[in-house]
Amino acid sequence: MKKTALAEAIRNTIAELKVIVEPDAMARYGTDWTSAYTPNPIAVVLPKKVEEVQAIVRFARQHKLALVPSGGRTGLSGGAVAAGGELVVAFDRMDKIGPVNTLEQTVVCQAGVVTAHLQQCAEQHGLLYPVDFASSGSSQIGGNISTNAGGIKVMRYGMTRQWVAGLTAVTGAGDIVRLNSSLSKNNTGYDLSQLFIGAEGTLGFVVEAVMRLTRQPRNLSVILLAAPNSSALASTLQLFRQTIELTACEFFSEQALRYVVDKGLATHPFASSSPFYALMEFESDEGQMLEPVMALFEQAVQKGWVNDGVISQNSSQYHSLWRCRECIGEAIAHRRPHKNDIAVPLSKLPQFFEAVPTVVRQAYADCEVIWFGHLGDGNIHLNVLKPDSWSQEIFAQHCHDVNQQIFAIVQQLGGSISAEHGVGLAKKGDLHYSRTTQEIDLMRAIKQVFDPDGIMNPGKIFDSTA
Amino acid sequence: MKKTALAEAIRNTIAELKVIVEPDAMARYGTDWTSAYTPNPIAVVLPKKVEEVQAIVRFARQHKLALVPSGGRTGLSGGAVAAGGELVVAFDRMDKIGPVNTLEQTVVCQAGVVTAHLQQCAEQHGLLYPVDFASSGSSQIGGNISTNAGGIKVMRYGMTRQWVAGLTAVTGAGDIVRLNSSLSKNNTGYDLSQLFIGAEGTLGFVVEAVMRLTRQPRNLSVILLAAPNSSALASTLQLFRQTIELTACEFFSEQALRYVVDKGLATHPFASSSPFYALMEFESDEGQMLEPVMALFEQAVQKGWVNDGVISQNSSQYHSLWRCRECIGEAIAHRRPHKNDIAVPLSKLPQFFEAVPTVVRQAYADCEVIWFGHLGDGNIHLNVLKPDSWSQEIFAQHCHDVNQQIFAIVQQLGGSISAEHGVGLAKKGDLHYSRTTQEIDLMRAIKQVFDPDGIMNPGKIFDSTA
Repeated sequence: MKKTALAEAIRNTIAELKVIVEPDAMARYGTDWTSAYTPNPIAVVLPKKVEEVQAIVRFARQHKLALVPSGGRTGLSGGAVAAGGELVVAFDRMDKIGPVNTLEQTVVCQAGVVTAHLQQCAEQHGLLYPVDFASSGSSQIGGNISTNAGGIKVMRYGMTRQWVAGLTAVTGAGDIVRLNSSLSKNNTGYDLSQLFIGAEGTLGFVVEAVMRLTRQPRNLSVILLAAPNSSALASTLQLFRQTIELTACEFFSEQALRYVVDKGLATHPFASSSPFYALMEFESDEGQMLEPVMALFEQAVQKGWVNDGVISQNSSQYHSLWRCRECIGEAIAHRRPHKNDIAVPLSKLPQFFEAVPTVVRQAYADCEVIWFGHLGDGNIHLNVLKPDSWSQEIFAQHCHDVNQQIFAIVQQLGGSISAEHGVGLAKKGDLHYSRTTQEIDLMRAIKQVFDPDGIMNPGKIFDSTA
Repeated sequence: MKKTALAEAIRNTIAELKVIVEPDAMARYGTDWTSAYTPNPIAVVLPKKVEEVQAIVRFARQHKLALVPSGGRTGLSGGAVAAGGELVVAFDRMDKIGPVNTLEQTVVCQAGVVTAHLQQCAEQHGLLYPVDFASSGSSQIGGNISTNAGGIKVMRYGMTRQWVAGLTAVTGAGDIVRLNSSLSKNNTGYDLSQLFIGAEGTLGFVVEAVMRLTRQPRNLSVILLAAPNSSALASTLQLFRQTIELTACEFFSEQALRYVVDKGLATHPFASSSPFYALMEFESDEGQMLEPVMALFEQAVQKGWVNDGVISQNSSQYHSLWRCRECIGEAIAHRRPHKNDIAVPLSKLPQFFEAVPTVVRQAYADCEVIWFGHLGDGNIHLNVLKPDSWSQEIFAQHCHDVNQQIFAIVQQLGGSISAEHGVGLAKKGDLHYSRTTQEIDLMRAIKQVFDPDGIMNPGKIFDSTA
């Protein structure tokens, strides 16, 4: 169907549905934070109600039209890219939030609620929505659920999965399924909501959810530790984790920090530099935790795992230290880095830090590599910067080739090639490093159950045939 | 196939597999804690290895033989009952545990590890496995996962689902799938492990799992509050929950307590009796929490929600107070009560306590009804005692009839007819109160994907055709 005919047909079928066919807007709605794909949607629709989403899916089934969901479009794996003439279903207008239920500690959100809005809403009620990451100002709850978003507080609070009390989805068959309300206990057969979490819109669209909230943490403090090498990071983490409950444990290299400092986004916290830094956050409960934390710090120094350290004494220092880590993405964004998002079991971090830097040094001899990530989750973001003299194509090909070596190590260590960014288009070719053929076949068969015509975000995660 | 021929055939196919055909043992292995079904397995097999389980499933596919998994057989919904000539696969010999990984806070368990054994193992390493319930001395991890077991600490720690880092299952197709190892972040497509959790063995058998552990709580204390009526319980819960983090919030009626006291299992904690009691547990962190808890208690008294209260001052008092609640099941067991395991959203508890007691008083005018349960989860165990003069059949039929009225209220309040006991055989006829026809059809289609011949615990949760 031609674009204009489609727009006309859909407008005639669903009264009051907002339909966009302007090229600029379509280009914007048809892509995410990846830059490798050329957006090419046939149109963009912006439903306001669950029933409109259902009508869109039914229309798409009838016309054998592929659908791509669009939330905040902050994804890093091309999960929300419409590069093949798909109809984009954007949830921007489904942004109702509330009411907050302070007894159940839940809040009802439509799919288009922006993460930061949910966080603020929780805060206004003296509660916390603890899933937090760099794109929280734009990402939407529907997208967070569909990608099982992680971020910087997973160590303490888990992934988005843990915060979904219930959800409503429109399946690829065009059915509305309301899966659990806000019950914490409901053992009545398969928990189908779990399938939609992390399915990247391939089974159906998440249109509404009941999100859990929790109590706010008391007096968060951070300690930033300077480490002589990467394996010291793993030892230090183990030491701290066995004694105190950490709410976050991040790490970054001096090279990463240097970008942040050079951009004026933070000041260097130490007089001299060290190869790596670990940032650990904890609830200090009116200062009571400072003594045990200092004792652990001294132990780490004695063991030679830590060169230096600084602990936040107030809210301003807390935020300054966090900026050293939080601003890395922003500081290197102009270099359009090739991002990796790999994870290994915590106890395999020493082997990982033994094997991967060697590969990286050799294979990326001409590229700058920026190490940072969520140490406490075993989740490393290896960002590779393109040498100015290389073309984008050569660089992309090279990164792809090197990835095969890195992914093989990750696979051997029982790790994941996509810890929190999902698979989308970008990683489906590498999915076999983390999932077996059998598992991928099971996923295909499950997709067939929910999406018999294969219209829901087709070609994402896996292709419909092997 | 005849029993003897089958036993012979299976012994010939799988060397060293333990096969039991003695009637007494078969009767024991073919049932659970429900008493409504007559066990009738064709044989019982006790594999020692994952590969043996796989061989059993392949054998069963070949011979179109239905399989029933058997763990600790403490289920209350007939999920592990073999009443139709099935082959029982018992996991008693797959009881290896360890090693504990203190860095990752995980432990590898075979399906047959007894819950209490896992709890002790965690404790020996200074950690906690927090899922706990009355049958922890016999129930096995495979069964806990397959029924997503809950219990008395769900309010703080969640259900078994939250403690499964990864699992290995043998599907109904006879494939071994190893789903995640111990990664806390792994967004590589559908999380298939979530389907096996709570599937009651209808998709495949969980044979091994990596279970998460956590830090031990610090100085647990309890406060037991006497309430003038059931709606005061909900108000008191809301008041406490908004200020302090509770690790448990249970309730029971004076009638329930009276059974415990009369059996000599606990002493009555108050000089005079009240209709209901709420028991709240919290970490007192060297007594620091006692002041805020006392302040909340005084507020509750002023509001008229609480008549009296007692707070544990030491470990011995803590255990004494807990016994008032924990011993109810044991105290009424000789009456073989009809059990209900229903849940409503917390904020619907007032409506629940408004509507259900009226129905109960009328419909169970001749029966004694014992109220207790997990208040903090909105999970009520309504236990009905048979009048001595009634036959078991008449009593069962009457309870079934009354259930329809109670379930209709539960459904209207967005609740669950099986909060934590699962569906099995006992509740599949009532599943429609909590799940739609569409959802049940989706479950059937998913079962077809994992269990193409329909041999895995058939007839549990739902029948294979509508």
